Amino acid sequence: MSNKKKVVVALGHKALGTTLPEQKIATKTAAKAIADLVEAGCQVVISHSNAPQVGMIHTAMNEFGKQHPDYTFAPMSVCSAMSQGYIGYDLQNAIREELLNRGIGRPVSTILTQVVVNPYDDSFYKPVKVVGRVMTREEADAEEEKGNYVTKVDGGYRRIVSAPKPEDIVEIESIRVLSDAGHVVIACGGGGIPVLRQSHHLKGASAVIEKDLASAKLAELLDADMLMILTSEKKLYLNYGKENAEPLDEISVEKARAYIAEGQFDETSVLPKVVAAVSFVSLKPGRVTVIADLDDAKEALEERTGTIIRS
Amino acid sequence: MSNKKKVVVALGHKALGTTLPEQKIATKTAAKAIADLVEAGCQVVISHSNAPQVGMIHTAMNEFGKQHPDYTFAPMSVCSAMSQGYIGYDLQNAIREELLNRGIGRPVSTILTQVVVNPYDDSFYKPVKVVGRVMTREEADAEEEKGNYVTKVDGGYRRIVSAPKPEDIVEIESIRVLSDAGHVVIACGGGGIPVLRQSHHLKGASAVIEKDLASAKLAELLDADMLMILTSEKKLYLNYGKENAEPLDEISVEKARAYIAEGQFDETSVLPKVVAAVSFVSLKPGRVTVIADLDDAKEALEERTGTIIRS
Repeated sequence: MSNKKKVVVALGHKALGTTLPEQKIATKTAAKAIADLVEAGCQVVISHSNAPQVGMIHTAMNEFGKQHPDYTFAPMSVCSAMSQGYIGYDLQNAIREELLNRGIGRPVSTILTQVVVNPYDDSFYKPVKVVGRVMTREEADAEEEKGNYVTKVDGGYRRIVSAPKPEDIVEIESIRVLSDAGHVVIACGGGGIPVLRQSHHLKGASAVIEKDLASAKLAELLDADMLMILTSEKKLYLNYGKENAEPLDEISVEKARAYIAEGQFDETSVLPKVVAAVSFVSLKPGRVTVIADLDDAKEALEERTGTIIRS
Repeated sequence: MSNKKKVVVALGHKALGTTLPEQKIATKTAAKAIADLVEAGCQVVISHSNAPQVGMIHTAMNEFGKQHPDYTFAPMSVCSAMSQGYIGYDLQNAIREELLNRGIGRPVSTILTQVVVNPYDDSFYKPVKVVGRVMTREEADAEEEKGNYVTKVDGGYRRIVSAPKPEDIVEIESIRVLSDAGHVVIACGGGGIPVLRQSHHLKGASAVIEKDLASAKLAELLDADMLMILTSEKKLYLNYGKENAEPLDEISVEKARAYIAEGQFDETSVLPKVVAAVSFVSLKPGRVTVIADLDDAKEALEERTGTIIRS
């Protein structure tokens, strides 16, 4: 066990971009943030989102599969596994290079990660995550016949999948061993590959796990000191986008819960971050979550920027 | 450091199949072989091939990219990273489940692995690995205009890429830490993501690394006791497929080199295995390579089957 400050960093779209050329550029910015934390003496474990990437992979694999029946369809869980390779490859190299440029020869690696979800999770009855490309009515019907859900959008239909809560991380021991050995570890990419426990078997689930919730679970299981959620905004706001918008510097768990109940946070972008923050810090005194801009990682570590949430 | 016997196992097509349904079945057989070695008390690190899988991923991503220019093309190195997720996910779960069924709760994980190749490797001037689907003359011309190589095959053209020699494994420290902690580790999938060192930067190479050669490099860097190459044949043969075919039980490095020089081994399937065997055992006395059938892993460990190659 080291006595370094242990930080789980959740990276979002600003750190990854949408396309491959964007990813190569965005990961360089992300790498600067991570290198700042390593340089400050932290033990760093990184998770990241994968929404545009896994959508692109899922569409490419399955559209092509339709035209070439000898090729296989790839379920959402398999596409999630592929997206961890697709993103981890660029992200680990950007971090490795930035560390070497600062004279730090620290191993950086990506662990393929599965996250256990509950088959009775409410979300399986109420899918909310929109994925893949816009489809015609006939294509949407075909998806529904396969047991998949679709939703009406501008210009047609798109698939929607469930976003169940993370309950456990299958590879947590491997992540812990590497992190305790001083390595920089990338894990739970895209929120992790969602799996259901069936006795000794793990079955891939047709779902997507919120990366912020998976990150909170990761921070909890590693007993991290800090969960740092890096995004494209400086802080959380009350009345976001309105005339009376008000930035939040520091809030208690109770306040955070109250604001959630008031519906202060956008359901698809901000809410999962605040829920993740609350779930992490409420479990043990002394824990802190910082939600800050990707460019402010160093100041966020020192709790000098962003929105701080503590128990 | 443990004093367990350290074995690097290279898995091929029999252990993985071609399509996703095949992969789910084949990895169960592979898992039995791996569990036998774990049960026998070995420290096991696993590498595997990816030829049909990376071909399928490359074709799907790039064919789809052509129809949808807003989506990105994925170079060979990125497809290799994706294939490590695609295969590692099923393989690690099959092994985990087989171990649990035997009452062994051992962590199993997949490390995204990059393998360094030399930009001056002869193979870059002489690509040999055929990948992807059959193309028309026009499509082949378009590939050549992009700087890619193509070769004439039955019914059209296919891309060919280089197969440079592995020189180093970027994530070797992470693989070593996990293996020494007693975990079962999957690494160097598909021979690893081929990268070129450019100062601190790693640049993806348009190439495929022979998984047998990457496995030998892995065994060398981990200072393994045994390299076990599991295939679909019981042994190596002299005069394979001819009337005077002769199985090989045990050969020295010198004999192996002589047979290679005689052209005894098929260049695309058997030769890389024998070259890998020679490169591993010739570096240090006491090392052994066994080339055996996937179903005979336990006997192969005890050197009671397969072809044994030692210095």
